[in-house]
Amino acid sequence: MLTKKKTGGLAGIVAGDSAICLCNADEESLLYRGYSIDDLAPHASFEEVAWLLTRGSPPTRQELQSYRQNLVRLRALPKPLEAILDNIPKNANKMDVLRTACSALGTIESENNHQIEIADRLIAALPAALFYWQNKRSLLENEETHAGYLLHQIIGKIPDEIHRRCIDVSLILYAEHEFNASTFTVRTIASTLSDFYSAICGGIGALRGPLHGGANEAAMELMQQFSTPRQAEEGIRQMLAEKKLIMGFGHRVYTTRDPRSDIIKEWARKLCSTIEDERLFAIAEAIENRMRKEKQLFPNLDFYSALAYHFCGIPTSLFTPFFVFSRLTGWSAHLIEQRSNNKLIRPISNYIGPTQHAWKPL
Amino acid sequence: MLTKKKTGGLAGIVAGDSAICLCNADEESLLYRGYSIDDLAPHASFEEVAWLLTRGSPPTRQELQSYRQNLVRLRALPKPLEAILDNIPKNANKMDVLRTACSALGTIESENNHQIEIADRLIAALPAALFYWQNKRSLLENEETHAGYLLHQIIGKIPDEIHRRCIDVSLILYAEHEFNASTFTVRTIASTLSDFYSAICGGIGALRGPLHGGANEAAMELMQQFSTPRQAEEGIRQMLAEKKLIMGFGHRVYTTRDPRSDIIKEWARKLCSTIEDERLFAIAEAIENRMRKEKQLFPNLDFYSALAYHFCGIPTSLFTPFFVFSRLTGWSAHLIEQRSNNKLIRPISNYIGPTQHAWKPL
Repeated sequence: MLTKKKTGGLAGIVAGDSAICLCNADEESLLYRGYSIDDLAPHASFEEVAWLLTRGSPPTRQELQSYRQNLVRLRALPKPLEAILDNIPKNANKMDVLRTACSALGTIESENNHQIEIADRLIAALPAALFYWQNKRSLLENEETHAGYLLHQIIGKIPDEIHRRCIDVSLILYAEHEFNASTFTVRTIASTLSDFYSAICGGIGALRGPLHGGANEAAMELMQQFSTPRQAEEGIRQMLAEKKLIMGFGHRVYTTRDPRSDIIKEWARKLCSTIEDERLFAIAEAIENRMRKEKQLFPNLDFYSALAYHFCGIPTSLFTPFFVFSRLTGWSAHLIEQRSNNKLIRPISNYIGPTQHAWKPL
Repeated sequence: MLTKKKTGGLAGIVAGDSAICLCNADEESLLYRGYSIDDLAPHASFEEVAWLLTRGSPPTRQELQSYRQNLVRLRALPKPLEAILDNIPKNANKMDVLRTACSALGTIESENNHQIEIADRLIAALPAALFYWQNKRSLLENEETHAGYLLHQIIGKIPDEIHRRCIDVSLILYAEHEFNASTFTVRTIASTLSDFYSAICGGIGALRGPLHGGANEAAMELMQQFSTPRQAEEGIRQMLAEKKLIMGFGHRVYTTRDPRSDIIKEWARKLCSTIEDERLFAIAEAIENRMRKEKQLFPNLDFYSALAYHFCGIPTSLFTPFFVFSRLTGWSAHLIEQRSNNKLIRPISNYIGPTQHAWKPL
C-alpha cells in the first residue's frame, strides 16, 4: 500500500526546523552548525565540537581551556548517586545503568534553569557514573581530554596517542545526526516542557535498541563469528538467504554512502596495521563487499567504529555507552533548540481497529 | 508561513497504524479497542480496562479475578530497588522518583521476552515504589482493586466507596489516548527495538511536562489561587490579557469538546456536594465559563480531574503520578503493538542553519 509505505516510521516527514545539523543525502555530506565533519574530524577535538554543538559557535582558546577544566571537575559524583549505583546489580546492561544514573541524578540535582550546565554535567558525570558502577573509582584528573579520560578508565593505563586520537575522532563523528530516533525522542519529551533529565533518559533508552545505537555492538559480534574473510563472505551469504538482519549497513537518510564511515574506516585500517592483526579488518571488508554486492548496502558509522573501538581495547559491551558519551552533546543541543521555539510534538494514528462494540458488564 | 504551521509538532500527521484507540474529534467520541468510554466509565472497572488494553479483548470473570490477585502479588518490591529508593532525596519530584524506579527495576528484572508480564509488573510495582519512597511501606494486600489500593495508601485509611469508585473511573479515563506525546515517545523508543523499561521511562519523562500530564497539577494550583468565582473570572481575564498559558483547556485533537471531561466533571460535582464544599467547584466553573467566552476553549480531562482528585483527598503533587498509574496500560498496549509490526520511527528536519563554514583550528 503506497500510503502506508510513505507514512511508515515518519520516513521523509519533516518534524520541525533545526539549525544544528545538515545531513545531506544528495551530497553525502554532514555539517554540524555549518562545519563539515570532513573538516572537524581531522582538525578539531571532541571538546571543541561539544562546545560548538551546545553553544552554537566554536570556542575561543580560553573558552576551550576553561571548558576542559570544567568537564574534569564535573566528573565528581554526589554521594547519593554513588549509593544508588552501589545497588545496581553487577550483571545489568550498561545502557540500563546509564539511563538509571541519568534519571537518579535528576532527583538529586533537579533542573533550575541553567540548562547548559546540566548538559556539561551529564557529559562529564555519566561516564564517571558508569565507571564508578564498574568499580573504577578514580576521576583521573590528569586526563584533561574526554577521549583520554574515557580510554584510560577503560584500559586501565595511559593510552597510546594514536588510540586517544582515534577515540577523539570517533566521539566527533558520533556527536550529532539530525532527527535520528534518540534525538527525536529527546525533542518529543522536551516538547511537553518536561525537564532536561527526562529528555536525556528517553534518548539513552532509544539509543539502546539494535536498530539505533546498539548496532555497533551487533556489528562487532558479527565480525567475531568468522575466522577468515572467505568464511565471512559465505556466512553473510547464508544469513541473507535466511533473511537475517545484518547490523551496521544502510541508513534511513543516506542512500549511497555514509560520509562518516570512510573516516572511521581509515582509522580502523591504520590501527589494525599498528597492532599487526589485519585478519579482523580483512573479515570486515569481506562483509562489506558481500553486502554491497548482494544488497547494494553500504557500511554506516557503526560498522567500522566497532572495529576501531575493538582495536583501541574497548570491550564490546561499552560500544553503545560510548555512543551515549558523544551523542549527549547533540541531544543537549536539540533539547535547548526545541525549548527555544517549542510546539508540542503530537502526531495522530491511522485507526485500524474494530468499530464500536457494546460493553457487557461481568 | 503555511508550511511551517502544517508541519509544526506533527499536528495532523499520521505517524502509524493502530488498533488500540479511536480518538474521534468529529464525533467527540473515544473508543478503547472498540469500546466507548461512555460505556466503560459507568460499567467497567480499571482492571477490566487494563486487561482490555494490554490483551486486546475483555477478560472473562475468571481472568479478571486472577489478574486482580496477580496485581496484588506484584506490588512486592525487590530489595535492591528498595535500597535505591532509600537513596533518592525526600524532596525529589515524584515523577522523577517514578522514572528512576522504572529505570532501576529494568536493571534488576531485565526483559526476557515476557513483555505482558513486565506490563503487569510495572502497573503493580510503580505505585508501590513511590509509596515505599514516601515511607508508606504496607502492600495493603486486603485492597484488591487498584483504585482502592492507591487511595488507601494515600489517605492512610479505608476509603469511602464513592471516592474509590471516582478514582476507578478516573483511572479508566486516563488509561489511553492514541498517539499523545508520551505514548508516541514510548513507540519511538520501542521502534529502535530497545527494551520495555527504556520505553516506559521515556513515557514517564514525557508525561511529566506541563503541556501533557503535568497539566492536572497546574490546573489545581490555578483554582486554588482564587477565593470566589468572581475573583476567578477576573483573574483569568487578567492572565489572558498578559498572554499567560492556562492549563487544562483545549486539546490537540478535539476541537469542540473532550468527551472525557463531562464524565469527570459530574464526579467532581457529586463529590463536592458530598463534602458540602461547593466553593471550589463554583470557582472551577467560573474559570471554565471565562475560558469558553474569551478563548472558545473547553476544559480537557485534566481540569475537572484535578478537582475530583482534590475532593478524594489526593495531594496535588500526586496528580501526575496518578496519570502514570493509569496510562501505563495504554503505553504497554502501544509498545506491544509497535513491536508486532515495527518500523524505526525517524523523521527528518528542515534545515535552517548556516551554509558551509571553514573550520579554523585553534
